Amino acid sequence: MTNMRGAAVGFRRGLSAASASAQGEKVGFVGLGAMGLRMARHLLASGRDLVVFDSNSIAVDRILSEAAAAQAAAQAHGLTGPGSAGQRPGTAGRGGGAGQGASAGSSGGGGGGGSARGYGSATAVTSPAELAETPGVGVVFTMLPGPAIARQVYLGQAGLLAPKAGIVPRVLVDCTTLDPVTARELAARVRATRVHAGLAGPRLAGLPAANPTLLDAPVSGGVVGADKGTLSFLVGGEEAALPTVEPLLKAMGTSVTWCGDAGDGQAARLCTSLVMASTMAATSEALALARRLGVDPELMSRVLNTSSAASWVSANYNPVPGLSPDAPASKGYRGGLRSAQVQSHLQMAVAAAERCHSPVPMARQVLGMYTQVVEEGMGDQDFASVYRYVYGSGAESGEWKEGQTLFGAQHP
Amino acid sequence: MTNMRGAAVGFRRGLSAASASAQGEKVGFVGLGAMGLRMARHLLASGRDLVVFDSNSIAVDRILSEAAAAQAAAQAHGLTGPGSAGQRPGTAGRGGGAGQGASAGSSGGGGGGGSARGYGSATAVTSPAELAETPGVGVVFTMLPGPAIARQVYLGQAGLLAPKAGIVPRVLVDCTTLDPVTARELAARVRATRVHAGLAGPRLAGLPAANPTLLDAPVSGGVVGADKGTLSFLVGGEEAALPTVEPLLKAMGTSVTWCGDAGDGQAARLCTSLVMASTMAATSEALALARRLGVDPELMSRVLNTSSAASWVSANYNPVPGLSPDAPASKGYRGGLRSAQVQSHLQMAVAAAERCHSPVPMARQVLGMYTQVVEEGMGDQDFASVYRYVYGSGAESGEWKEGQTLFGAQHP
Repeated sequence: MTNMRGAAVGFRRGLSAASASAQGEKVGFVGLGAMGLRMARHLLASGRDLVVFDSNSIAVDRILSEAAAAQAAAQAHGLTGPGSAGQRPGTAGRGGGAGQGASAGSSGGGGGGGSARGYGSATAVTSPAELAETPGVGVVFTMLPGPAIARQVYLGQAGLLAPKAGIVPRVLVDCTTLDPVTARELAARVRATRVHAGLAGPRLAGLPAANPTLLDAPVSGGVVGADKGTLSFLVGGEEAALPTVEPLLKAMGTSVTWCGDAGDGQAARLCTSLVMASTMAATSEALALARRLGVDPELMSRVLNTSSAASWVSANYNPVPGLSPDAPASKGYRGGLRSAQVQSHLQMAVAAAERCHSPVPMARQVLGMYTQVVEEGMGDQDFASVYRYVYGSGAESGEWKEGQTLFGAQHP
Repeated sequence: MTNMRGAAVGFRRGLSAASASAQGEKVGFVGLGAMGLRMARHLLASGRDLVVFDSNSIAVDRILSEAAAAQAAAQAHGLTGPGSAGQRPGTAGRGGGAGQGASAGSSGGGGGGGSARGYGSATAVTSPAELAETPGVGVVFTMLPGPAIARQVYLGQAGLLAPKAGIVPRVLVDCTTLDPVTARELAARVRATRVHAGLAGPRLAGLPAANPTLLDAPVSGGVVGADKGTLSFLVGGEEAALPTVEPLLKAMGTSVTWCGDAGDGQAARLCTSLVMASTMAATSEALALARRLGVDPELMSRVLNTSSAASWVSANYNPVPGLSPDAPASKGYRGGLRSAQVQSHLQMAVAAAERCHSPVPMARQVLGMYTQVVEEGMGDQDFASVYRYVYGSGAESGEWKEGQTLFGAQHP
């Protein structure tokens, strides 16, 4: 085994010298939904060239045309030279010894405009498998709606792990929120896959020579965080892959927390969702109750925020319209984190808890509430809409009618 | 009516001049439990003379001997002259025109030692009714275990409102956590009582001449806040009484928030308890789940504290032993806010919600958990002990056994 591995390294090292310009230059991105699209934009804005896939061709066309337009604008301002390699003028300072080949002519970038690095290029492929075979792709991100699609994207017939000759990227990073068991299974499957002997980049220190690795890196911060590039990543897997991935995560977010082995990022993420959703549900219920008892929600929120009941939710993401001006509740519960997404996180948290026999009565309760919120047709609204559900009046929105409530069985 | 009231004022004004030293000089305090004892100490330390009642003679003896010892010590340091009036050297600067009579000889106090005012005296009475008839008592505080005893202390045969000739204090302040309905009923009963025509202090601006008034002023901050004098008061009732009461509240706490009419302080308090208890239960459950999924609670807490799940509870009152060094969880779940107390608050919140038809599924869920916590014999532990309940292991405490869990029906 050791010998084979050593031989493989030697082979790839030889090849790596011959095609230096392709090593880790491109970043793969699968999943261009509300979150993925915004995350991919930050990678482009940081000067990375992307190879993207999404089953929705509208999403793909959008990012391709955005990238092309941004490059054209940058070119018009003299920020970058033409061509793919030239769109990342910061590369030479970042990539160490690997950037000297085709990108040698791109040193005219930097300075002027908002971004010193210029804007990356975007090209599209027709399947995850094709992405995994694309030369020059060093890292692939996936940002998917949930476990079912994640399994398909990784393990499906045209999935990332399908190429028979091995895959090009050495590091895969799944930003989807998953249950830890699925995350661990995917990590094992990735680890059992081989890297493409001819096309993969050089071995990364501390990682196997012949196999790729998967990090789980679920995010918090929602669409707003994805848009502003202020996401928080909770990362699990092989820590040796972090130096390669962290600069890319930092292009999309502000905080990267190492949580441990494969699946541990997901575990931490689900526990965070559990607390966040519970806090939102309890805060919503308390503000509705206060209002019905005659206490103004604004006063009540001030009391909460200066008490032992204080939370990020009541201070920054208040579910009552108008109290947190920037929060989705003040914008018709649009944007933010969808209730259906929270429901899915809670389902995974409950499933994970069942497997390890951890009692989660709160998660079950809140899951029940969000299931009802979704069934009432508010699944696409921000998760603060649970306030509408417990308050049940159209006073703020005009869309919700008195008596249209709620948890009726408990209030006969 | 107006004539009668005017006449009564004149009468009392006349008398007030004749017994100036008795006007609002003393503060009544009923209920010397874990909270009340510590609150009363702060009033004494601020130089107020107390007249106290508690059915537990040990608690009464304790405060009497503490006050006597403090006075003796102060006297030894030359802080105060002998006798009751002399124990409040700060009075002249505080009481306006009412302090000139018998207290004229007490001006030797102040300066030196920790307190510039000296320590107040404490005397005891044998019933709330006797307290309400004691000359010189301007304000009475009550700090009781719950609604049943509050009703007894106010409305019972020997209660505060029992004296046939009217009561001496013009302002009663109930710091007990009550349901808003009981608080409003008590406020109405106080308002329907008469002040003692001969003994009551001068009329307070904005308040009726012939009737006392009740403020609800429930606290948060627990035993630790009571001990340190950092309680938060949520106040409802007649706002005109606030100038009289606020300096006394500030002697016991740091924050006084006016919430509105009678009962509104209680409403705000119950909503705060609802959110606080829910946050504690969800945080405990999530930390237990994280641990079972392989994520260290300290790491998980850091993740929570920097995410949208952040709360005062996880940052300052973490339920896992050792993570918040000053919190009760790090001291064997001793001190703090008792689980039985939280259970009682949640019961009142649910009852209040039922009356106004506000759905409170979270409060019901958390009430169920705290009811089980109490039934398991942890009612006297801090409310963070719900973590023991969901984690169910003796790893930290040695008192709790693996498998002794919990919510078993949900995890067959």
